[in-house]
Amino acid sequence: MNQVLPSWNDTAAKRAITDFIAATVTDGADFVEPADRIATFDNDGTMWVEKPAPPQVDFIFRALAKAAQEDPSLAGQQPYKAVVERDIAFFGRVAAQDPEVILGLEQAIARTWEGTTPAEFEVQVRDFFSTVKQERFAVSYAELVYKPMLELFELLKANEFRVFVCSGGGRDFMRVISEETWGLFKENVIGTAAEFEYKDGKLSRQAKVLGAIALGPGKPEHIFARTGRLPLFAGGNADVDIEMLEAAKFALLINHDDTAREYAYTTAAERAFAEGEERGWTIVSMQDDWKTIF
Amino acid sequence: MNQVLPSWNDTAAKRAITDFIAATVTDGADFVEPADRIATFDNDGTMWVEKPAPPQVDFIFRALAKAAQEDPSLAGQQPYKAVVERDIAFFGRVAAQDPEVILGLEQAIARTWEGTTPAEFEVQVRDFFSTVKQERFAVSYAELVYKPMLELFELLKANEFRVFVCSGGGRDFMRVISEETWGLFKENVIGTAAEFEYKDGKLSRQAKVLGAIALGPGKPEHIFARTGRLPLFAGGNADVDIEMLEAAKFALLINHDDTAREYAYTTAAERAFAEGEERGWTIVSMQDDWKTIF
Repeated sequence: MNQVLPSWNDTAAKRAITDFIAATVTDGADFVEPADRIATFDNDGTMWVEKPAPPQVDFIFRALAKAAQEDPSLAGQQPYKAVVERDIAFFGRVAAQDPEVILGLEQAIARTWEGTTPAEFEVQVRDFFSTVKQERFAVSYAELVYKPMLELFELLKANEFRVFVCSGGGRDFMRVISEETWGLFKENVIGTAAEFEYKDGKLSRQAKVLGAIALGPGKPEHIFARTGRLPLFAGGNADVDIEMLEAAKFALLINHDDTAREYAYTTAAERAFAEGEERGWTIVSMQDDWKTIF
Repeated sequence: MNQVLPSWNDTAAKRAITDFIAATVTDGADFVEPADRIATFDNDGTMWVEKPAPPQVDFIFRALAKAAQEDPSLAGQQPYKAVVERDIAFFGRVAAQDPEVILGLEQAIARTWEGTTPAEFEVQVRDFFSTVKQERFAVSYAELVYKPMLELFELLKANEFRVFVCSGGGRDFMRVISEETWGLFKENVIGTAAEFEYKDGKLSRQAKVLGAIALGPGKPEHIFARTGRLPLFAGGNADVDIEMLEAAKFALLINHDDTAREYAYTTAAERAFAEGEERGWTIVSMQDDWKTIF
């Protein structure tokens, strides 16, 4: 495998990946039937930049700010007030998954997109990606996808793996970019989703609160529900990916340790790294293992 | 398309299918991008024999009878009593979707398979298919899949369609046979499903009642949830398939009109045929359009 993964340096991480894939497809003790070759990846922080906030958070907050602008009665209420005033304390409670704050946010999201058709939602998401720029890199979030990971997708697909993204993020948000950006059909995206009603030949989004997001054990549960299997290969970067990584035969854990080219942080990933060291997961240093990031 | 669909007679139904597929893949007004080529099919009565009862009903009733045998305290209760006594009136209430009867059945199903792992369930289903014989044909249900439909799957796949089965039947039951029988990966099966919990590295089935089955408008809703699209091509045989067929550009409706080689019935399909005539769906006469059935 000479020209594979060109954006990866020739380090132990790259060798672990290529050795695993080679053994999987070669007759012998580690051969795996094509039907069982399922690979699953987290999205935020694994496939693209998630700092200072995941792209979808920016998308949602912009929509809430616009709603507050159009309807002044909302501007005094949470979460609209906090969004408009850029209230750091409130954002901290979101990050800490404060149940009251999360519920209020879910209700505002449900209200904002009630009755939206898939085509209308797609227009909004495309508009976001074509106009909004990430604050540090000053380019569209869609350009901040990690090139080494896209090469890994291609390598896996070339070896008859079916690749899925499994994220707590919004299914329909990710699906807008999945085909052109990841080379994955929409059906290969697993994520948090609203319910849609089919009536008079048309699908429209329901106002129901989304409820629990597929994190932690929810990841392997959703992967099984969708694919009928647990993953053979999995990649993630945070504590919420632990169960998905445990369930896989080969686990890849991304370490954000590159202040110069991206960000350096281990918040909400402390347990994952401790467990990864113990279990011998392949830990990818963005600084050392990736030649190119974007 | 000379040698395609060899089990189909050279009638209008076959020509409608091959013309539609040819137009879909050929540059011109009716060309459809590969990404949008989703084909979805019902299972019972569309892919295999559903009379006198769908195979899964036989599977479930055998499991309930066995439970009543092992635990005599159950034998006096419904639905166990009716199953053991082969109570025709009770089965009529199941067929008529009597809410009280359906709930009791769902609770019994939940109780029977609580804690079962996917591997254990697969063993039970494989055992069923390898030992139980359908009453009229005296062969395994797995041999009563319609050959013309399997050829249609192959033709669609050869033209870059992604083929899914979407049934009110059990997802995990169908997935046991989907790969070897239909040539579809498990992830291409959409159906009614129990929840599974992932704990200590293991998936096990929860006792939760399954709840509403994906019928009628639930079919396009589930297809959208799973694939991000509505179908381009759809096939069904009953009223519960109407919305899925309406949502598709090409709709195939199977008419069970072959007493000699299969069964003849239109019960629970009356509305579908009326609508199919009106909308110009391709109605397949098993008697006239299929050279071979199995």
